[in-house]
Amino acid sequence: MNAFELYNPTKLVFGAGKVNRLGELVKPYGSRVLLVYGGGSIKRSGLYDDVMFQLSEIRATVHELPGIEPNPRLTTVNKGIDICRKEKIEFILAVGGGSVIDAAKAVAAGALYDGDMWDFTIRRATVQAALPLGTVLTLAATGSEMNGNSVISNWEAKEKRAFGSKLVYPKFSILDPKLTYTVPRDQTVNGIVDIMSHVFEQYFTLTTDIPLQERFAESILQTVIENGEKALEDGSDFDARANLMLAGTYALNGTLPNGVSTDWATHGIEHEVSAIYDIAHGAGLAILFPNWMKYVYKERVGKFAQFAVRVWGIDPSGKSEDELALEGIAATRAYFTRIGAPATLGEVGVKGDQIDRMAQEATRFGPIGSFKQLDIEDVKAILQSSL
Amino acid sequence: MNAFELYNPTKLVFGAGKVNRLGELVKPYGSRVLLVYGGGSIKRSGLYDDVMFQLSEIRATVHELPGIEPNPRLTTVNKGIDICRKEKIEFILAVGGGSVIDAAKAVAAGALYDGDMWDFTIRRATVQAALPLGTVLTLAATGSEMNGNSVISNWEAKEKRAFGSKLVYPKFSILDPKLTYTVPRDQTVNGIVDIMSHVFEQYFTLTTDIPLQERFAESILQTVIENGEKALEDGSDFDARANLMLAGTYALNGTLPNGVSTDWATHGIEHEVSAIYDIAHGAGLAILFPNWMKYVYKERVGKFAQFAVRVWGIDPSGKSEDELALEGIAATRAYFTRIGAPATLGEVGVKGDQIDRMAQEATRFGPIGSFKQLDIEDVKAILQSSL
Repeated sequence: MNAFELYNPTKLVFGAGKVNRLGELVKPYGSRVLLVYGGGSIKRSGLYDDVMFQLSEIRATVHELPGIEPNPRLTTVNKGIDICRKEKIEFILAVGGGSVIDAAKAVAAGALYDGDMWDFTIRRATVQAALPLGTVLTLAATGSEMNGNSVISNWEAKEKRAFGSKLVYPKFSILDPKLTYTVPRDQTVNGIVDIMSHVFEQYFTLTTDIPLQERFAESILQTVIENGEKALEDGSDFDARANLMLAGTYALNGTLPNGVSTDWATHGIEHEVSAIYDIAHGAGLAILFPNWMKYVYKERVGKFAQFAVRVWGIDPSGKSEDELALEGIAATRAYFTRIGAPATLGEVGVKGDQIDRMAQEATRFGPIGSFKQLDIEDVKAILQSSL
Repeated sequence: MNAFELYNPTKLVFGAGKVNRLGELVKPYGSRVLLVYGGGSIKRSGLYDDVMFQLSEIRATVHELPGIEPNPRLTTVNKGIDICRKEKIEFILAVGGGSVIDAAKAVAAGALYDGDMWDFTIRRATVQAALPLGTVLTLAATGSEMNGNSVISNWEAKEKRAFGSKLVYPKFSILDPKLTYTVPRDQTVNGIVDIMSHVFEQYFTLTTDIPLQERFAESILQTVIENGEKALEDGSDFDARANLMLAGTYALNGTLPNGVSTDWATHGIEHEVSAIYDIAHGAGLAILFPNWMKYVYKERVGKFAQFAVRVWGIDPSGKSEDELALEGIAATRAYFTRIGAPATLGEVGVKGDQIDRMAQEATRFGPIGSFKQLDIEDVKAILQSSL
């Protein structure tokens, strides 16, 4: 096990109807609130009205930043930063999924930075201060509700980049599984793939002697695999939605990477694909991850064999580690296909003509990943195998 | 899954040699420090000197509260409270195991309370403010390094009681597995039993549809079972000590009880035994837990069967749930015996003549536990079967 630090001050408030705690949770931070949300589903569902009622109870002055895109854009973030400055916003409330929360974090950090918030993503500046933010989660997927990460797209430059800071951890996140009952099927699918992918990035590691971290990762994967299918069968299955939501949070709240060298190459490649094509992050990951697995598994076949046995329940008798590893990878692809995720870039309209550019961008700071370090040729090969 | 809140702001700094971060971690809180420790093993090991060097580097004024007992006593806590008031202490640093940390929490809360800190344990007052504290952990056991709980003994009244507050979470805890290399064998054993017992209290529940919490619990148990034996074979096995330490922290840092009705009856009974006899908490738990299991398992045989199969790897083929449950309980007892923990109260000098008193005290506020609610007669029966 490597040395590590763990610090996660986000307060989770989990359960049906917990939006009724919102006023009390916002109040300590001030009364000038920026409400950040997406395409309007929260208005159709009635959640917007519930949130506004809660904020009116504490006599908050509410400004709004609606229309956050599925891949949230720098231009939209900058609009939010302008509002924060003009209106002296004291607290940012994100109501939505990971994109909305990521945008809120970028606004929170950008509002107190004397420059272009994009600087944080290109390491030209680090976050020194941020407005406090909180979230009401409506989608089990990115884990953004309990971490300090944010991914923003610069659509003009066709770039999608991440920044992270302890200062943008949400002060609180309200997780009501019932709010995810109305999530459309494809978004539930993308969420399932996203959660599993977060675990993969931290599970497939060359670090050894980390039995607890491995088992925690396997626990999340098994829980998502079972409950993902249940939630797709019946969108209003409370326990399935609750288990998926909790698993999504734990997949990226700092529990898995303790003392572990994590990978994140596949996320890096996917960011280049969706920077150009604006496809759903979960769809991109479903296409790429099994191909990454096939490309790298020989670096540590035993770990992939363990994955096959412990996560997919594959019977190891009479099989070589290599056979088991390949069966585990095949089971991953089969599961993604069974729940309706795409398997090829062609299915989502991505052709081969941009592969060189995507591979170049993905490796612009050098090789990516740690399970196997991937250079530009490796990334091209993985993209090629995904067409 | 039930509704729940999760909030844990303790910063973990984990790794070999991390005591060198101590000065920097203490500094933001002030320079007047109360150093709390136990029987002097930290002086023999050189840790005391390392800590004092770190504190001298930030020019701290250090007062000391040495001699914290294995079951920390109210009289000693009160000494610490007096020092805090007289010397205007700004930060409390606990260097030791769970007893030392629990005592430091009691001092931290008591120093800012205008009354007897025992009031917190008998629910006559709740903690409204506390001095900040940090820890350097020297024993994998209680999990006190990353929670807001404390257990204090009132030796004159023969009472051992707990209090909890969000205000006494350590600001930071330094976890260096190497500091546990010199832990005596019996204390390592007690730590293993203590960690497993914490998991049992949260795993054996009537709450259903909590697959993630169950698997996390099973993950911790399996990790402790394997690495406990390794640490006993070779006290300087870094990975075994590291895995045990991390498991101990996760067993009681709020990861397992999310949305779960927890039990804690066995801890309640053990507190009454060690309040009178001053035996090690881990020893008491090793004696009582398998007997509690036998007494209650029929309330939910399936959960105990799952425990047998998933945690102890018992082959379920051709066995009834009842048989599996009993095999899992027997495996628990066998493991405790194999690592050298006691199996009967007689072995630790406890006779039957105080059973009525202990059962009465354990149930003084009514029945205890949630897996099966135990009244005074139930507690007597469990104690009787443990003689």
